[in-house]
Amino acid sequence: MSLSARIDAAVRNAVLIGQGGIAPAQLSGALTYATTPGGARIRPTILMSVAMACGDDRPQLTDAAAAALELIHCASLVHDDLPCFDNADMRRGKPSVHRAYSQPLAVLAGDSLIVLAFEVLARAAHVAPDRGIQLVLSLAQKTGMPGGICAGQGWESETEIDLSAYHRSKTGALFIAATQMGAIAAGQESEPWFELGARIGEAFQVADDLRDALCDAQTLGKPAGQDDLHGRPNAVTALGVDGAMQRLKDILAGAIASIPSCPGEARLAQMVRMQAEQIMPVFAPVQAQA
Amino acid sequence: MSLSARIDAAVRNAVLIGQGGIAPAQLSGALTYATTPGGARIRPTILMSVAMACGDDRPQLTDAAAAALELIHCASLVHDDLPCFDNADMRRGKPSVHRAYSQPLAVLAGDSLIVLAFEVLARAAHVAPDRGIQLVLSLAQKTGMPGGICAGQGWESETEIDLSAYHRSKTGALFIAATQMGAIAAGQESEPWFELGARIGEAFQVADDLRDALCDAQTLGKPAGQDDLHGRPNAVTALGVDGAMQRLKDILAGAIASIPSCPGEARLAQMVRMQAEQIMPVFAPVQAQA
Repeated sequence: MSLSARIDAAVRNAVLIGQGGIAPAQLSGALTYATTPGGARIRPTILMSVAMACGDDRPQLTDAAAAALELIHCASLVHDDLPCFDNADMRRGKPSVHRAYSQPLAVLAGDSLIVLAFEVLARAAHVAPDRGIQLVLSLAQKTGMPGGICAGQGWESETEIDLSAYHRSKTGALFIAATQMGAIAAGQESEPWFELGARIGEAFQVADDLRDALCDAQTLGKPAGQDDLHGRPNAVTALGVDGAMQRLKDILAGAIASIPSCPGEARLAQMVRMQAEQIMPVFAPVQAQA
Repeated sequence: MSLSARIDAAVRNAVLIGQGGIAPAQLSGALTYATTPGGARIRPTILMSVAMACGDDRPQLTDAAAAALELIHCASLVHDDLPCFDNADMRRGKPSVHRAYSQPLAVLAGDSLIVLAFEVLARAAHVAPDRGIQLVLSLAQKTGMPGGICAGQGWESETEIDLSAYHRSKTGALFIAATQMGAIAAGQESEPWFELGARIGEAFQVADDLRDALCDAQTLGKPAGQDDLHGRPNAVTALGVDGAMQRLKDILAGAIASIPSCPGEARLAQMVRMQAEQIMPVFAPVQAQA
């Protein structure tokens, strides 16, 4: 099975748990809607790649960890799109969840996906209880307060922003979760994997800033220029387009150099390079204006 | 330490975890705001009482379980009060979280409290990993989809409601979590404790229906008549005031009869009786109209 097929199966099976038995039909539907189509599934891809580089001796736990992380990411998109945040009508080329269903169902779908993430981990934990608990803890810390993506969004309500804490929690957290949870699922220490996750997260932030500043809404599948609109800090504003592109390359080189010694080190480095090529923005010159 | 002091300390310590280090100040504040004043803390009181009736041999885990359950309850109140649900301006006699802070911060506070609940369980789980995982699973199932309080809210968006599934998930779920998590924290099987939780939940639903139909907003500390307003099913509508009062007494008698054999059985029965007296609505005759 390919990596992407394995991830899709893990996410699908996780969502099915939330739809079992007698369940309200629309909220059930919203769970599938919010998690498909999968898009790049970048975070679970990184998680599984790290787990495989470390031996992947409990594949059931790796599957659960990858699904749980993706559910949290999808939940965050559903809530971020709400009218009181980004007020986004579109996501991944189709109406956002609150537009397709309703605001109440979007709030509930996000809540349900968050809870489901922890349920999926608990269900798989019997194969290695200690790792299961570490996974719950790691995912919670990267999702909630004070250091997870909730904190990241929370910073946007502050008049004085701690930029380092903001970026680490807003974008970095789930990438750090990806590398560390991959290591935990395979029975390894999580700490040595922090840097790889942090650097990948930083790269995505810069790539996202470039995309947000330069692309049009059609290419993004969501409203463009959101950062400028909401006055959020942005690498392009700080460094210019060329500076931000150079910064992106430097970060990715650092990411590859930070990979801890492990059996699948070379293959993992190759995966990061491939992901890097995918996120490197390519623009027609006529669009490049900042 | 009294039971209520123990619960307050557990909840306070849990919230402090979410406020550690560098955190966005307003969202930090909203976590305290959403969890204080404690009100009756009914669910953690039941949880701790069951754990103590079963021996409470891992008090650290009992504390974590009680706090986690209360955090989920508080999170549900924050999200339920949002304009897209009950649009409630007041809660527990003070402005609701989205009125005191903002809608984005209310969404994030709810999300953060949900996540924090699972983090608190994971942090305490080292004293008994198998119980810790069971607690995560039990709490997740009673919170999310398809059978938790998210599902309960989800039913309110359906045109055809499965009334039994609706009540079991909307109000019953967190009371079943209370009795079952109390048993799990003390190393006991959870299944025999299902009925006690389910019956207490049913009693609270009927008591709430009576209160919602009969009280004014000042007594409730939140808007009254919400069920009629939103066309939700209600025991008073079905049975009348006297019928609903009799039903409430029958359910509570059944609850006490269902308590499984355990060392602290008699004391637990006493606790349920005390809770019953507290929830039994007392109305001035002039207010009694349905």
